[in-house]
Amino acid sequence: MLDKVAEANGIDALMQEIGKSAKAAARPLAMAPPEQKNKALLAMADALEASKDAILAANAVDMAAAKEAGLAASFMDRLLLNDERIAAMAHGLREVAAQKDPIGEVITEWDRPNGLHIERVRTPLGVIGVIYESRPNVTADAGALCLKAGNAVILRGGSDSAHSSRAIHACMVEGLKAAGLPETAIQLVPVTDRAAVGALLSGLGGTVDVIVPRGGKSLVARVQAEARVPVFSHLEGICHVYVDASADLEMAKKIVVNAKMRRTGICGSAETLLVDSAALGTHLQPILEALTEAGCEVRASATVLKVLPFFKPADEEDWRTEYLDAIISVAIVDGVGGAINHIAHYSSNHTEAVIAEDPDVVERFFNEVDSAIVLHNASTQFADGGEFGMGGEIGIATGKMHARGPVGVEQLTSFKYRVRGTGQIRP
Amino acid sequence: MLDKVAEANGIDALMQEIGKSAKAAARPLAMAPPEQKNKALLAMADALEASKDAILAANAVDMAAAKEAGLAASFMDRLLLNDERIAAMAHGLREVAAQKDPIGEVITEWDRPNGLHIERVRTPLGVIGVIYESRPNVTADAGALCLKAGNAVILRGGSDSAHSSRAIHACMVEGLKAAGLPETAIQLVPVTDRAAVGALLSGLGGTVDVIVPRGGKSLVARVQAEARVPVFSHLEGICHVYVDASADLEMAKKIVVNAKMRRTGICGSAETLLVDSAALGTHLQPILEALTEAGCEVRASATVLKVLPFFKPADEEDWRTEYLDAIISVAIVDGVGGAINHIAHYSSNHTEAVIAEDPDVVERFFNEVDSAIVLHNASTQFADGGEFGMGGEIGIATGKMHARGPVGVEQLTSFKYRVRGTGQIRP
Repeated sequence: MLDKVAEANGIDALMQEIGKSAKAAARPLAMAPPEQKNKALLAMADALEASKDAILAANAVDMAAAKEAGLAASFMDRLLLNDERIAAMAHGLREVAAQKDPIGEVITEWDRPNGLHIERVRTPLGVIGVIYESRPNVTADAGALCLKAGNAVILRGGSDSAHSSRAIHACMVEGLKAAGLPETAIQLVPVTDRAAVGALLSGLGGTVDVIVPRGGKSLVARVQAEARVPVFSHLEGICHVYVDASADLEMAKKIVVNAKMRRTGICGSAETLLVDSAALGTHLQPILEALTEAGCEVRASATVLKVLPFFKPADEEDWRTEYLDAIISVAIVDGVGGAINHIAHYSSNHTEAVIAEDPDVVERFFNEVDSAIVLHNASTQFADGGEFGMGGEIGIATGKMHARGPVGVEQLTSFKYRVRGTGQIRP
Repeated sequence: MLDKVAEANGIDALMQEIGKSAKAAARPLAMAPPEQKNKALLAMADALEASKDAILAANAVDMAAAKEAGLAASFMDRLLLNDERIAAMAHGLREVAAQKDPIGEVITEWDRPNGLHIERVRTPLGVIGVIYESRPNVTADAGALCLKAGNAVILRGGSDSAHSSRAIHACMVEGLKAAGLPETAIQLVPVTDRAAVGALLSGLGGTVDVIVPRGGKSLVARVQAEARVPVFSHLEGICHVYVDASADLEMAKKIVVNAKMRRTGICGSAETLLVDSAALGTHLQPILEALTEAGCEVRASATVLKVLPFFKPADEEDWRTEYLDAIISVAIVDGVGGAINHIAHYSSNHTEAVIAEDPDVVERFFNEVDSAIVLHNASTQFADGGEFGMGGEIGIATGKMHARGPVGVEQLTSFKYRVRGTGQIRP
C-alpha cells in the first residue's frame, strides 16, 4: 500500500514538473515568429521520414504486445504504423506548416468617439493537454496543431502505443531543437500510469488551459467528469438526417446512404433517419431499400413497421445509440417540427442534416436545431475540420464554450484587446 | 442535524427545479425575434419606473437590516437604491433594447471547392448563472444582458439585498409576460441559503452553461474553486502602468494620476507604477509628485528610495496587492523588457498600460504582455465594456476561454455552423 502511495506521489511530482516546463515554454512560444514554428514543423516531418525504421521497430514492439494481449482487430488497426502512415504524418506536418499563422491576426477592430482605437488580436491559449489512446499518429498531429497556434502541449498517449508514441515524439523534439524552440514545447508524459491522467485533469495547479481527449466514449466520459479545466470534446455523435416531403428523392437516397455507410465508425456518420410523415408513401421505401442494398441493417419505429413490416423493430434505446456500425434507426416524424423535437430529445448536438427543397423547412431546421453543425442537402460525413477547410483538426467539440464543431488551429487560440490612445484619460 | 440535511435536500430539489425551468425557457428564448426581446426589455424599464415606490420600500427594509447589522458604509452605498439609481436601471434596460441583436448574425462565411457554403452563426449560450452580492441593480443589468443574448438566467443575489432584488425581479417578470416570453427566462433564487450557491456551482446536472460571479474577491475565489462549469470572472485587477523613457512627461503624469485616482475602487484602477530606469532622472519625481498632490500614498521600491528617500518602502506583498484605495506601489524596471518581466510575475492578467513615444517599445509591450487588455497612452480605467462600445457588461474576464476582457452581450453567445449544399456526398 505504502509504496503505491509513494509511487502516486512520485507521479504527481513528475506531472507538476512537466506542467512547469510547459508553462515556461509557453511564453517564448507565444512570441515565436511564424517562420520559426514552420521551420520546426518541417524539420519534424524530415525527422519522421529519416527515423522511419526506428518508428516501425518501436511500433512492432507495441503490435506484438497487443497481439499477445489478444486486443481486437479494430484496435490493432488503429495502433499499426507502416510506410504509408508515416508518410501521411509527415505530409500532415508539412500541411500545418503551410497553413496561415493565426497568432497576431486582428480579428476585429474599431474606433471609439474619444479617439481610442481598439483591436481584438489572436493570441495562443497557453498550455494544452491531449489525452489519447491507441493511435500513435496523434503524437504528431496534435503536437503540430498546438505548436502552430503557439501553445505548449502535454501529450499523454495510451500505454498500448507507448513505444510508437515515444519514437514519434523524439522526432518532434528534434524539430523543435532544429528551430531553436524550447524542447518542452511538446512533452510526452513518460509514464503510462493512470495517475498521470488524473494529475493532468486537475490542471496541474492552474497550468493547463484546456484538455482535449482523443479516444472512445469511456475516455471522453472520464475526462468530462473529472477535468477541473475546460475540455474540448464530444462524447458521441448521434447524428440525424431528416428527409422532408419536399426532398429530391434521388438526392435523399444518395445522401442518406453516404451519411450512414461511407465510413460507419466516425463520429459524423448518421445513426438515425427521420422521414416526414408526408413522405411515407413516396420517400420511405426507396431510401430504406437503398440502405439495405448498401448492406445496412434498418431498425424501424412502429409507424415504419406498419407500412414496411419486414424490418427489425427499434426500441427506445435505439434512438440513444451511436452504432458506429452498419445499422440505422428510422422514425417517422410530423414534418420538420417533429424532426426538430426528436433531435432536441435524442441528439448529442454534434451534426444533423435536412434534405429538403422547401426553403422554409430548411430555415426552420437551421434556426431551431441546436447542434454544432447543421447541413442542408449534404452528407453528415462532412463534419470534419479538413472538409471545412480548417486544415487539420484536433477533434470535434459539442460544448458551446469557445470551440464548437471542428477544433482546428484557430480554435486553439485566445485573444486580447490592444487599445491605442493619444493621451486619453477617463472623465 | 437531520432537519439541516432535510433543509439542504429541499434546497437542492428546489434548485434542480429552477434549472429545469431555465432549460425549458432557453429553447423558445433562443428563437425569440429581436422585437419580442426588446419589447420585454422596454416593458421591464416601464415596470421599474411604475414600481419605484415598492422598490424603494423593499430597499428600505434591506438598508435598515444592514444598518442594524453594522455593515460598512461602502457596503451600504452599494446596497442603496434611490430615484436616480432606479432611473439608471430603467435607462440601462432601454439601452440594451436599443443595442444590435447578436443572435443569428453570420460571424464569418466561406465556400468550399465542392460547392458547400459554410456559415458560422451566432447562437445563445443557453443558461447562465449569475451570483452577486450587495448591489441589487445587478438583478436588472445581468437579467437584461442575458435576455438580449437569448439566454435564460438564474440570478442568485446576496441575502442582504434580498428584498430589493425581489422587487426588481418582479418588474423583470412583468416585462417578460408583457412580451409573451416564458416567465422562467429570468429567475431569482427565492432562498438565501449558501447551499443554493453550491447547487448552482455544480451546474444543476448539466443545465447551467456558464457562471458569472459579481462581487468581491472571496466570492469570486469560491466560485472559481468550486464551479463544475465554466466561469467568466476576474479574481482581481492588479493593473500596471509602465512609463518608458520615451514617454511624454505631461501625458504620463495625466494618465498615471487618472489610472490610479479617478476611481480607486474599480478593477481597472492602476495598482503598480513601473518606471523605466532610463527615466529615473526625468519622469520619476514629477509623476510621484503629481500622485502625492492628488492624495495618493506612494509605496516605493529600494531603487526609488535611493533617489527619493521620503516615501514609504514597498515590500514583496505590495507587488501582489490590489489596494482598491488611494495607494500605489512604484518600481524601477530595466526598460520595457523589465516591465514585461515584472508584469509576467505579478499581474492578474487584467489590464496594463504603456506610456511611450517609441513605437518599438509599444509593439514589444503589446506583443509580450499577456493580459486581457493592453493600452498605449491611455488610462487603465478604460477597461470597461461601456467604454469599449459594447453596451453594458456583465463583468470582466481574465480567463482565456471564450470570453476575455469585458463580457458584453456578444460574449454571452455561442455559435454553430450552417452548411448549405446541393446534394454533396463525401467521396
